[in-house]
Amino acid sequence: MPALDICFSPELLPLYELPGKVAVVVDILRATSSIVTALAAGVTHVVPFSELEECRAMAAKGYLTAAERDGQQAEGFDLGNSPFGYLDGGLPVLGRAVAITTTNGTRALHLSLAADAVVIGAFLNLEAVADFVRQQGKDVVIVCAGWKGRFNLEDTIFGGALAERLQADFDTTGSDATLAASQLWQQAKPDLAAYLLQSAHVRRLNGLEAHQDMAFCVQLDTYDLLPIWRDGRLVAN
Amino acid sequence: MPALDICFSPELLPLYELPGKVAVVVDILRATSSIVTALAAGVTHVVPFSELEECRAMAAKGYLTAAERDGQQAEGFDLGNSPFGYLDGGLPVLGRAVAITTTNGTRALHLSLAADAVVIGAFLNLEAVADFVRQQGKDVVIVCAGWKGRFNLEDTIFGGALAERLQADFDTTGSDATLAASQLWQQAKPDLAAYLLQSAHVRRLNGLEAHQDMAFCVQLDTYDLLPIWRDGRLVAN
Repeated sequence: MPALDICFSPELLPLYELPGKVAVVVDILRATSSIVTALAAGVTHVVPFSELEECRAMAAKGYLTAAERDGQQAEGFDLGNSPFGYLDGGLPVLGRAVAITTTNGTRALHLSLAADAVVIGAFLNLEAVADFVRQQGKDVVIVCAGWKGRFNLEDTIFGGALAERLQADFDTTGSDATLAASQLWQQAKPDLAAYLLQSAHVRRLNGLEAHQDMAFCVQLDTYDLLPIWRDGRLVAN
Repeated sequence: MPALDICFSPELLPLYELPGKVAVVVDILRATSSIVTALAAGVTHVVPFSELEECRAMAAKGYLTAAERDGQQAEGFDLGNSPFGYLDGGLPVLGRAVAITTTNGTRALHLSLAADAVVIGAFLNLEAVADFVRQQGKDVVIVCAGWKGRFNLEDTIFGGALAERLQADFDTTGSDATLAASQLWQQAKPDLAAYLLQSAHVRRLNGLEAHQDMAFCVQLDTYDLLPIWRDGRLVAN
């Protein structure tokens, strides 16, 4: 039976052997939730960048550009890191490509590329992730983006939620990280939004917009869509 | 109000600013539990080493030597990593000095030395740690030794237990790591030994001796004794 493990921070990723495994990159608030939403809204593909300047330069190639630093939209970009940027009422995004850079999510993705397959996870596409992972039948590592390298609750409980969906087919009790994430998920599950209101990151993302984003990002299975890394870009699988 | 934070792995310690703070190093199974027990049994001081050879060489200076690698006593040493090595029936330890090297605990300790004060925490001396930290009134970082750099449950729930003891005087909700540890502690608290039987590390430490050690190490407040780092050695405060 293949095993599911959870890496709580990109800084710990060197301790995990990724070749031969599937990596599920998660940054619930808000990078991976936004990427799922973008592709669901008809964006053709998403290219992640580490640096603001490289990302901004993609505008000249016809890309929409999206950037977040410390929770805020960076100056000179079309979009920030809110999933609502891709929904009705914002910029037209259908058929466009998007270049993004975010504080934590991009880093987690780039560090995960040694895996056999790299996919993007969020509560919004939880079952699509579970389906793909079941089909692959390989060991899976959930790579939590965290907050500037530190543990965070929202990515951790996503790990617990995915472990629950996969428990019939995967060993989801082989590491203490998985056990802890599963227990925390059980506490969070009855009311995800209320649970996450206590988290340090959510308190940091103050204000109405942030709370609207959070309420959106904790919805389960809104999109049957799996972003996958292919030829240097994220596309719908 | 000073803050309490928890670092789940020595690999994440570079993200924590230790100067000006108190570091509480914890490796429940079993390094810090054994160090507390050793000093309580009349050992004069404990010197930790990273390498087996340096540690073994201390025998020539009259030290008892203690070494563990991958959960087993290393060959050619007086003691392993069991707290029972310092209790009645083992070697006479009263008035002796001990040189130790362990897989995870020694590393966590050495990486913590930038803190204003470095103390050793275990369930066995939980209230002694809480007392010291309250008296200092500085920010505190609990440094979990983990397992080869990874998150583990036993050190994490110690963090939650200490947070509970300090919640009247410290901000114990400022980081997601502290929130998670506190929630896991609440689940573990009714029966610590039963809770830890599920952990990956405890399952790894198979056999009767390991379970006796575990049952010993989860006792609360057995010793009113605080090992503190002073002049290159751990002594009773």
